[in-house]
Amino acid sequence: MMSAPPVDGKEFPPLKNDLILRAARGEKTERVPVWLMRQAGRYLPEFREMRAEHQFFTVCQTPALACEVTLQPIRRFELDAAIIFSDILVIPQALGLTVEMIPGKGPSFPEPLVSPDDLSRLNTSVDVGQALGYVFEAITLTRKELQGKVPLIGFSGAPWTLMAYCIEGGGSNTYSKAKKWLYTQPAASHTLLQTLTRTIVDYLVGQVEAGAQLLQVFDSHAGSLGYDMFCKFCLPYLQQIAREVKEKLRAKSVEPVPMIVFAKGANYAVAELAQSGYDVMSLDWDIQPQVARSLAGQDVTLQGNLDPCALYSSKEEIREYVAQMLTRFGTQRYIANLGHGIYPDFNPEHVGTFIDAVHQHSERMNKAS
Amino acid sequence: MMSAPPVDGKEFPPLKNDLILRAARGEKTERVPVWLMRQAGRYLPEFREMRAEHQFFTVCQTPALACEVTLQPIRRFELDAAIIFSDILVIPQALGLTVEMIPGKGPSFPEPLVSPDDLSRLNTSVDVGQALGYVFEAITLTRKELQGKVPLIGFSGAPWTLMAYCIEGGGSNTYSKAKKWLYTQPAASHTLLQTLTRTIVDYLVGQVEAGAQLLQVFDSHAGSLGYDMFCKFCLPYLQQIAREVKEKLRAKSVEPVPMIVFAKGANYAVAELAQSGYDVMSLDWDIQPQVARSLAGQDVTLQGNLDPCALYSSKEEIREYVAQMLTRFGTQRYIANLGHGIYPDFNPEHVGTFIDAVHQHSERMNKAS
Repeated sequence: MMSAPPVDGKEFPPLKNDLILRAARGEKTERVPVWLMRQAGRYLPEFREMRAEHQFFTVCQTPALACEVTLQPIRRFELDAAIIFSDILVIPQALGLTVEMIPGKGPSFPEPLVSPDDLSRLNTSVDVGQALGYVFEAITLTRKELQGKVPLIGFSGAPWTLMAYCIEGGGSNTYSKAKKWLYTQPAASHTLLQTLTRTIVDYLVGQVEAGAQLLQVFDSHAGSLGYDMFCKFCLPYLQQIAREVKEKLRAKSVEPVPMIVFAKGANYAVAELAQSGYDVMSLDWDIQPQVARSLAGQDVTLQGNLDPCALYSSKEEIREYVAQMLTRFGTQRYIANLGHGIYPDFNPEHVGTFIDAVHQHSERMNKAS
Repeated sequence: MMSAPPVDGKEFPPLKNDLILRAARGEKTERVPVWLMRQAGRYLPEFREMRAEHQFFTVCQTPALACEVTLQPIRRFELDAAIIFSDILVIPQALGLTVEMIPGKGPSFPEPLVSPDDLSRLNTSVDVGQALGYVFEAITLTRKELQGKVPLIGFSGAPWTLMAYCIEGGGSNTYSKAKKWLYTQPAASHTLLQTLTRTIVDYLVGQVEAGAQLLQVFDSHAGSLGYDMFCKFCLPYLQQIAREVKEKLRAKSVEPVPMIVFAKGANYAVAELAQSGYDVMSLDWDIQPQVARSLAGQDVTLQGNLDPCALYSSKEEIREYVAQMLTRFGTQRYIANLGHGIYPDFNPEHVGTFIDAVHQHSERMNKAS
């Protein structure tokens, strides 16, 4: 039982399950910790009920509602972490852009950034406490409501991924509008990426001060770039975020928390990402566990990487996929997860089977070794 | 100057530029051959003019029109190959499914396959000569009209990619409906994949008999699968296609032509793809050339892999990207191309710069060595 140090003057209940924190720090774990991206989401009937009454961003912006949906999967499943319900696009909103969530389509920017002139539309010195204080409040409330059951993960989108959304105005097959900026407007691109990075750093620091015990940075569109462009326009900002978040927390006498990087599709840069200052590297399912470990070395914890669609299988098959995954990754320096977020049509029972199988099989493996 | 052997009783003009065939067969080349996926396409004003008058599938189905658009980029640029204008979805059409091309959205199946019961809707013993004879006619006509200037490439979609379209009914972010079949209906999935494979084999054989001098198989959605599912549901069918197309041509006393496999996103299986029976492996831009060569070994020709968006750059920068790519791949056993098809908003002049830079720089490299 760890006693939780007060963060920013806040007293939180003592933490009863620090499995994921130990795994992230490379300490021994008796069973493999597990959580799922988008574990609070539309596959849960109780989430759909909430969403029937409230707009997506209303849930994000109302701490009591965000707390409630964050806790929903924790009540159902033996998860080893909660992740605050929010969206990566709250940062573009904080910079002054309008983002709408269109049912069945996803996020949409009515006025995306078209040319570098549009950078003047951005508020480049965001006071995150003012603009995103609702996230901090939601985190503090949820950390209390969790009663120390499991740690609470905070998160942010990564600079390139947010830049891509701001320019494309939504999802894209090619991200060619945003990539055109990288190729033809490198200076303006770096300006935008740096503005985003500064805001993200403050935002993540604020989340830890509010009570987040682990942070994940989502570079969801990294796969649209190749190695060279990734090294120019993603990696330096990801490194800067890891470095500055830890520095700023130390400067405030707050103990830094473990940080996870998830650069989806960037399997061409796994070796570089493993060295980028994060404690954990999350993997999609387009890389084999053994290959990832061999490229990443031993000094980073790996997270992932089951193909989400494997959860469509029978419970018996899910247990087999989990056993296979655990055998490949091993039980140490490893956090079980899917290679991407949960899809809305998943059967919650199968999610439960996945979680329980991770615990049961990893415990068996640890006892046998 | 090679004299062209008669194919299926057809006499074709002698081939004046066999650079790409030599590269595909691993023979020495004095300069690197180059072509681009979707080189006949909307980025060309003459193509848009044609499309303003004719529906997309009307162009595919009318040999004179398909021939005309195939030749358009050959008139403009010093390309080393033409690729017949067609679409990978002509196979689902031949199997009996309706496919519409919706402007600004892409292909759409009004009645996609929903459950294995829907397999009964498919014509599983397609006479490709009857159903797709228009493609063969277009190939024969184009081969003649090319006057031996460059070889003509034929192509097909790969089984998994076509299966994914038939079930999703169009593009998808996750291909989760089609992947759900793989996980929950493996027997029905294999039945569908085998039906597609049989039709694809006959279709590619017919293309060579009609005059195609090189074949490319597009597994555009391979990246939606991980290594295990790829090895179960893609690789065996890709291997079967390469093997059976060559066998069937030999049985008909037709000399097999080189074959290219392009499994976009399947960089987790580059080593396996290099051994799958194809002469050339095409690469997207999510793998570094040196890594690809090291995994692929020396017995396969590589094709690709510039990030398409690099063509948004200035002409000077395009020349630098080409020089870098050629340095990394080397000038032998290599065909220059983009890592994906040309986007509609490309400047045709920049496409020309790319092509010329490949020739000029590779000639310089060969002379210097």
